[in-house]
Amino acid sequence: MSGVRDVCVIGLGLIGGSLLRAATAAGRTAFGATASEMDADAASRQGFDVTADVAVALRRAAKQDAMVVLAVPLPAVEGVLRQVYEHASNCLLTDVTSVKGPVLDSVKRLAKWNKFVGGHPMAGSQESGWTATNPELFRGAAWVVCVEEDTDLQAWAEVAQLAIDVGAHVIPLPADSHDETVARISHLPHLFAAILATIGAQGGPLAMALAAGSFTDGTRVAQSRPDLVRAMTEGNRAALLPIVDEALGRLGATRGSLASTGGLAATINAGHEGAQLFQASKNVQRAGVRVSLTADDAKDGLIALGERGGRITAFDGDTAIGEVS
Amino acid sequence: MSGVRDVCVIGLGLIGGSLLRAATAAGRTAFGATASEMDADAASRQGFDVTADVAVALRRAAKQDAMVVLAVPLPAVEGVLRQVYEHASNCLLTDVTSVKGPVLDSVKRLAKWNKFVGGHPMAGSQESGWTATNPELFRGAAWVVCVEEDTDLQAWAEVAQLAIDVGAHVIPLPADSHDETVARISHLPHLFAAILATIGAQGGPLAMALAAGSFTDGTRVAQSRPDLVRAMTEGNRAALLPIVDEALGRLGATRGSLASTGGLAATINAGHEGAQLFQASKNVQRAGVRVSLTADDAKDGLIALGERGGRITAFDGDTAIGEVS
Repeated sequence: MSGVRDVCVIGLGLIGGSLLRAATAAGRTAFGATASEMDADAASRQGFDVTADVAVALRRAAKQDAMVVLAVPLPAVEGVLRQVYEHASNCLLTDVTSVKGPVLDSVKRLAKWNKFVGGHPMAGSQESGWTATNPELFRGAAWVVCVEEDTDLQAWAEVAQLAIDVGAHVIPLPADSHDETVARISHLPHLFAAILATIGAQGGPLAMALAAGSFTDGTRVAQSRPDLVRAMTEGNRAALLPIVDEALGRLGATRGSLASTGGLAATINAGHEGAQLFQASKNVQRAGVRVSLTADDAKDGLIALGERGGRITAFDGDTAIGEVS
Repeated sequence: MSGVRDVCVIGLGLIGGSLLRAATAAGRTAFGATASEMDADAASRQGFDVTADVAVALRRAAKQDAMVVLAVPLPAVEGVLRQVYEHASNCLLTDVTSVKGPVLDSVKRLAKWNKFVGGHPMAGSQESGWTATNPELFRGAAWVVCVEEDTDLQAWAEVAQLAIDVGAHVIPLPADSHDETVARISHLPHLFAAILATIGAQGGPLAMALAAGSFTDGTRVAQSRPDLVRAMTEGNRAALLPIVDEALGRLGATRGSLASTGGLAATINAGHEGAQLFQASKNVQRAGVRVSLTADDAKDGLIALGERGGRITAFDGDTAIGEVS
């Protein structure tokens, strides 16, 4: 794997801007563009190689055969994809958008891209914009790098190497697995946070005066920019709908139990078990695995690893080195 | 207000144990009892004046005319109340239980207490037991001290002074206002955390591998001891039911909107506004107020202050000094 391609980041918000900074800190040559003059100015003043003209950055990426990273919110992806197709259609392309199926659909609809590999670092926060960027944002984070039937594994490995270079570990997954899982562990939490914050605020100043840890933590992500939360949740509609139905069913059962017997053991015990599983998963014993990227069943091997919660942490030539519990 | 009465804490878990430590640190004479031999041993080894015999502690409280603080979970309250009635029925009595109506009912049913004032410090966490105690737990926290029609304001002020001595500020409220509000900002968050943790864990090791900030924060309190969470939520059934219904209605509307138009603006924007109100409430400008406890309308004044999210922070003789936005 070459691993030394220049990196061109389009979009310099929390994720894109942090990636530009982290890739630079990791010794990669990285440059970028953002439609926000303010963010471009702020990044330039801090010494980063940034322009407010996306076309200029993309033509430079084409010239340097750089990897292009789309780091704009989902609603802006198609517009930028058209620009990439116009100026840098031969470049290796990846993205860091929080929904993977819709981006893959756009890529396929707008152009038969040679080398597209979808990606998503699990490293958001309630903050946004260049001022919130942090070169350590990806340290220890999971970074999904998508494996589809037609994925070029050479390209895949280059994208995975960038994720590893900035401190993340790589989860190989098809787009649909990613989208179903983030509906469960990210998009539903965002909807719950919004509903909790709404119901809390309806209690007026008294409720705000009594709100403590459980409310603070349960509503934190409701501070996120609403347009960004809408982009990811609305963009993941198909996967999110059955998860919302599951939540409705569980909350309805909780309501029924509270109204009839008054008991909440089923809800609370299941939640406690889930929380304990989550804590245990952080310290689970993992065994080393190696996946040869040149083997016939390499994609199946990578996906099987990812579906089991395994991760790739390094490359040794054409072999991906990872671990799984 | 005397403010120098000895303090006898029955129950030495997170709240009771922290109160014993905080009251001691504040220069009060404090002693306690717990049915847990393990916690009694641990507290004694750390130099605290603690016994595993509740009756012994209560007889001492009667002899010293100490204030008795019930710090046991709701299901244990009635049993301890019977002991208090047997051994220390003339003592000023308060509690720190997370639901106020049911405790008040028990007190009224079991005995016509001379001096009972309900209380609840908003300072829980997912931890429990003596090992989790912290003398700084109440610093900056809201502590509800209940004002009912028949409350003795002299007794009320003594309980409020203890809360202030350990670093909290006091919210004067009737039990029913407290219970409705904590259903909103504490008990619903616990149920949401349980449901999120359950749905996340059902995604298996992959979901656990991708879970990041929104899941971690949204499920934190699901780590709490299930019996304690059951005690407070089941114990607040009447107030919690309409709040769960409100949550069901909002989640159902979210589901309908996602399924029909695909838009989530109403849910997400309302949540963001709620989260911003909560953040703003922390830094709101407050004006000073004084409530004379000997005035005819003193109780109305205190309750009106609490219902508006105001607080009492000190006493000047018979005058409560506070602030409200």
